[in-house]
Amino acid sequence: MTVNFSSDNETPVASAMMEAIVAANQGTATAYAEDAWSGRLDQAFSELFRTEAIVIPVSTGTVANAIALATVTPPWGSVYCHQSAHIQNDESGAPEFFGNGLRLVPVAGSAGKLNLDSLAQSMLATEGHGVHSYLPSALSLTQSTESGTVYTADEIRGLCKFAHQHNMKTHMDGARFANAVVSLGCHPAEITSEAGIDMLSFGASKNGCMAAEALVIFKQPQWRETAERLRKRSGHLLSKMRYISAQLLAYIENDRWLEMATHANRQAAMFAQAVQGHPHVNLEYPAQANEVFVRWTSEGFTQLESQDIEFQRWPGRDDLARFVFAHSTTDEETQYLIHALG
Amino acid sequence: MTVNFSSDNETPVASAMMEAIVAANQGTATAYAEDAWSGRLDQAFSELFRTEAIVIPVSTGTVANAIALATVTPPWGSVYCHQSAHIQNDESGAPEFFGNGLRLVPVAGSAGKLNLDSLAQSMLATEGHGVHSYLPSALSLTQSTESGTVYTADEIRGLCKFAHQHNMKTHMDGARFANAVVSLGCHPAEITSEAGIDMLSFGASKNGCMAAEALVIFKQPQWRETAERLRKRSGHLLSKMRYISAQLLAYIENDRWLEMATHANRQAAMFAQAVQGHPHVNLEYPAQANEVFVRWTSEGFTQLESQDIEFQRWPGRDDLARFVFAHSTTDEETQYLIHALG
Amino acid sequence: MTVNFSSDNETPVASAMMEAIVAANQGTATAYAEDAWSGRLDQAFSELFRTEAIVIPVSTGTVANAIALATVTPPWGSVYCHQSAHIQNDESGAPEFFGNGLRLVPVAGSAGKLNLDSLAQSMLATEGHGVHSYLPSALSLTQSTESGTVYTADEIRGLCKFAHQHNMKTHMDGARFANAVVSLGCHPAEITSEAGIDMLSFGASKNGCMAAEALVIFKQPQWRETAERLRKRSGHLLSKMRYISAQLLAYIENDRWLEMATHANRQAAMFAQAVQGHPHVNLEYPAQANEVFVRWTSEGFTQLESQDIEFQRWPGRDDLARFVFAHSTTDEETQYLIHALG
Amino acid sequence: MTVNFSSDNETPVASAMMEAIVAANQGTATAYAEDAWSGRLDQAFSELFRTEAIVIPVSTGTVANAIALATVTPPWGSVYCHQSAHIQNDESGAPEFFGNGLRLVPVAGSAGKLNLDSLAQSMLATEGHGVHSYLPSALSLTQSTESGTVYTADEIRGLCKFAHQHNMKTHMDGARFANAVVSLGCHPAEITSEAGIDMLSFGASKNGCMAAEALVIFKQPQWRETAERLRKRSGHLLSKMRYISAQLLAYIENDRWLEMATHANRQAAMFAQAVQGHPHVNLEYPAQANEVFVRWTSEGFTQLESQDIEFQRWPGRDDLARFVFAHSTTDEETQYLIHALG
Repeated sequence: MTVNFSSDNETPVASAMMEAIVAANQGTATAYAEDAWSGRLDQAFSELFRTEAIVIPVSTGTVANAIALATVTPPWGSVYCHQSAHIQNDESGAPEFFGNGLRLVPVAGSAGKLNLDSLAQSMLATEGHGVHSYLPSALSLTQSTESGTVYTADEIRGLCKFAHQHNMKTHMDGARFANAVVSLGCHPAEITSEAGIDMLSFGASKNGCMAAEALVIFKQPQWRETAERLRKRSGHLLSKMRYISAQLLAYIENDRWLEMATHANRQAAMFAQAVQGHPHVNLEYPAQANEVFVRWTSEGFTQLESQDIEFQRWPGRDDLARFVFAHSTTDEETQYLIHALG
Repeated sequence: MTVNFSSDNETPVASAMMEAIVAANQGTATAYAEDAWSGRLDQAFSELFRTEAIVIPVSTGTVANAIALATVTPPWGSVYCHQSAHIQNDESGAPEFFGNGLRLVPVAGSAGKLNLDSLAQSMLATEGHGVHSYLPSALSLTQSTESGTVYTADEIRGLCKFAHQHNMKTHMDGARFANAVVSLGCHPAEITSEAGIDMLSFGASKNGCMAAEALVIFKQPQWRETAERLRKRSGHLLSKMRYISAQLLAYIENDRWLEMATHANRQAAMFAQAVQGHPHVNLEYPAQANEVFVRWTSEGFTQLESQDIEFQRWPGRDDLARFVFAHSTTDEETQYLIHALG
Repeated sequence: MTVNFSSDNETPVASAMMEAIVAANQGTATAYAEDAWSGRLDQAFSELFRTEAIVIPVSTGTVANAIALATVTPPWGSVYCHQSAHIQNDESGAPEFFGNGLRLVPVAGSAGKLNLDSLAQSMLATEGHGVHSYLPSALSLTQSTESGTVYTADEIRGLCKFAHQHNMKTHMDGARFANAVVSLGCHPAEITSEAGIDMLSFGASKNGCMAAEALVIFKQPQWRETAERLRKRSGHLLSKMRYISAQLLAYIENDRWLEMATHANRQAAMFAQAVQGHPHVNLEYPAQANEVFVRWTSEGFTQLESQDIEFQRWPGRDDLARFVFAHSTTDEETQYLIHALG
Repeated sequence: MTVNFSSDNETPVASAMMEAIVAANQGTATAYAEDAWSGRLDQAFSELFRTEAIVIPVSTGTVANAIALATVTPPWGSVYCHQSAHIQNDESGAPEFFGNGLRLVPVAGSAGKLNLDSLAQSMLATEGHGVHSYLPSALSLTQSTESGTVYTADEIRGLCKFAHQHNMKTHMDGARFANAVVSLGCHPAEITSEAGIDMLSFGASKNGCMAAEALVIFKQPQWRETAERLRKRSGHLLSKMRYISAQLLAYIENDRWLEMATHANRQAAMFAQAVQGHPHVNLEYPAQANEVFVRWTSEGFTQLESQDIEFQRWPGRDDLARFVFAHSTTDEETQYLIHALG
């Protein structure tokens, strides 16, 4: 048996979403997001987030992030984000591309989270020189973070308030948003629209969908035009959008998305507990969502690999590895991993 | 009964492709096109086109076109295309976006086809002024054309030869490529790689796939790097690419793609024949693939609409409408339409 | 003696402007357009155009045009211009570059002038398809035109009104603006701000300055920020801007700019009159400013060349040539040319 | 008397260059850098740098830098530079604009200089993730640095070697290049072409020219096309380029540029010596060129200001100020400043 904790990107589509795809495959439907499924998204997400929401369905988180940032940032504007952010390290400059040369400013902060101090310090160092400098335009937070940690509602509120005071818009990269909601046990609105987030990249592919994500814009209907133009112009307006929209509807129906994330987080927690009880293995960061970062000897990791366990050795760090748990991870797989720790 | 001839974009996914998606949905698979299905594409398409082919799977034809053109055209380069081309009229500037401000030069030509004369004349009018002018860099042909016509292999060969002589690369927008191959009764290589086409946007979504297209690069392996960078940077490198690649493999397996296009073309031909036999209705262009452009009175079209027949009234032309036939069009639907002509 | 009618781009700097440069060269001055000369431009041009004007001094007409268009046009917006416009044919895509892939739409029209009919027809053919099309965003007129003709105030008013009704902003490329003002004998405001022009590329280099142009924005102070950001970001915010601004002030002082254009136009008129009186030579367009387009035999032109007369043979037209007259053209030179006609 | 040590950007044009401008102002000259002065630049700079040099005259250092970097860096490429670099902090994203979204990576290093360790560490942290990361493409060094220090020839050689080993091209921002050459007492080639620099932004405006800079490309004639296209497309191909080129020729003639820099450096050295002899004032960095960074109390600086001395208080640092000495600084002014220190 090979067990795979490499990434929730590698998981199959959950059955409910596959059924939604098949159900949507009846007869013709108007192309280019003018179909009935796409037409229900705004209403469904407005209810989910208890506020006015505009939904732009797309097929990747990268494009959701890039459209969001380019919608509110001029080419001479800067976007502040944690130095470990996906937009900074893993998107090959998609924000810079969509934003026609906007600049990301990586901000330090422990455990994957920037904070008021590090943000203020970074702004001081990079702006204030008129047309010679970039114009601070947006703040992007990742929730849950790239370190498997989670911002509290208070932290988000404080950061958003600071951003808005400095004329910046706020974005949340929610590639693993469901895991954060479950971790905090809060309502999804409490850490987004009600905390000052203007735009959310609502991730779904990692938690059971095929290639379905949504850019959700809160209370800013005037941004729709730009976001939709960017989607079309970047080749992301699928003619057969119904298959993405149908997944998104099934995903949020009856708290299905939270159930799947609950499952994933629970697997991660079981493993994290085992790590904490182990004499030679340690957690690198608090395990608050579905990713667990483990510090161990290189030999320790090699021994796991020899038992057909897949996970990610961290680049440039012999002593660090990441284990990701997903909607499709079984108890048996997690127990196998725990057992293999020795 | 409502019958829909508006666009092959509105059709459902054919069962073979849906089955391929479900079959691919087993267990985990490496993300970002490093899966087994994606890994078989180069070989499969090299065999299909009897030459070395690099395949870049993507989810829309627009992005396939945009990556292709941006791969071979500098920001100060121009791309010649027919004035009715999709890249010119229907992609909101995706080529200009991916190509950082490259320019499309629309070229005249009857029945949706540019020709050596109109191309040469257009080049004469737009280049030759050193750094002050755009640099002619690419020629893009649409096959089958936006008028439902088809370039012959000889025409393509002549145009590609001219383009290469002028240091331009050649691209084919094959959103309805299958319909052209079937129409000509030729081997797909005869009107692409063997006729001088360097890159093909191989359409599949209109002919039975969900959101699956491929940029196929012939004999130019050095273009892979740029094309793959552009795909990633534009947010088009799906983490779960296996679902697109599995469709593409099923699509070309056992000539399935040609069977479906044969069906679509046959429906179109039946309708075209009826039009030709009708005393007051006329074909605007020769009906050579799966689109039929019909000239009639506005009242005539209104009468069809009143019988729950959907099709596209042509913008700015009261007397023109387009009827599109697809893999999913039934004989019954076509007969209903023919009967409705009166 | 060699006499040069090739282009007013090739002329020397007039003495008044050279003196202004030397006069500005005293002691230090704050850099980046914060100097005293630059600080007087807004006021001086507001008086010149009898309305609120923002002045962005730059060193080329190309950048003035590009900043103007990019300030009011989104990347998915289109700019309508005459098919002979400098922005279309001679700027290597500067508008597309500054505008991040905006599109120019060339419009037909005789004698270098587009008109309401050709503009409306062009718009009908290129827009109206929602996010799939470019969004008509600006109209750019060239005054005097690339054919040496001049739009009347009425024509400009009509075109601007149409543009504004269609939510487009209006720009005038005034590389030879002085020649048009003199030709019409009007106040400069009558064919710009008072006729509905929002932005003017106020040319000066061709009419006696060294490398001094200005983008003038009428009654839209909110555009200043974007225009100044674009100037800086494109490397056009000179540290020593005083030398450009001092020229511009000297240029418009005491109608000096109009005097110089009057001289140039007069030379052109003398030549045009001679052409009209010649049995075998003809004017291609009415000679209304300082450029004269002449239709003759290739042999005729060769004979002029053999007399050390320089001018521009028109690309692709054996029977056409352009003669440009400038502030520095002497009566003797013009008489020499007239005499050489035979 | 007001004395100005704010910036060498604020100085007047030296008389030799003003005379060159006046001398070039005779009769007509072919436009767009096809004049006789521009035509001599390649040869003159090839001699100056004892190797094949291509010279692209422009009017600002920002555009020289931006063209250089965009010539060798794809949109998905990154440029490593010191965190204090002008391209990073003072050009409003010109490199990102010209480079269509390339990314600058700021690198740490004391006294304005990056080093092999900090560069290697920065690269390790930012690349190596295939298409998901930016591709390291160029290294940009500033000479003399933004801290008034100077890289030795050995340091440059080591950094260039490392860069080339990692497939990066090398650029030097030489806004104050003359001051560095004088400081090191070396031949200009020893710290550029012969040390591995591929492209030099050769600054002249700060050291006596009006608005004259040059991008110098060493031994890479194939880059000319791209650099010239970028110059045109960004509106920097002046029609009357002769006035820039004539200055550049006068500037390097008879070591004039080095004489002027010698004068400026000498003034700076006198002041630095006074600072070092002062009991309460300190140098922040070694004063190796024409900029002196001084650490003192805020009250101390205020006292200087009250004596009509202008200089730059450093943003965010009460205890730091910059004094810049130029070709036009007089002994009297420097002595006045020294005396004012108390």
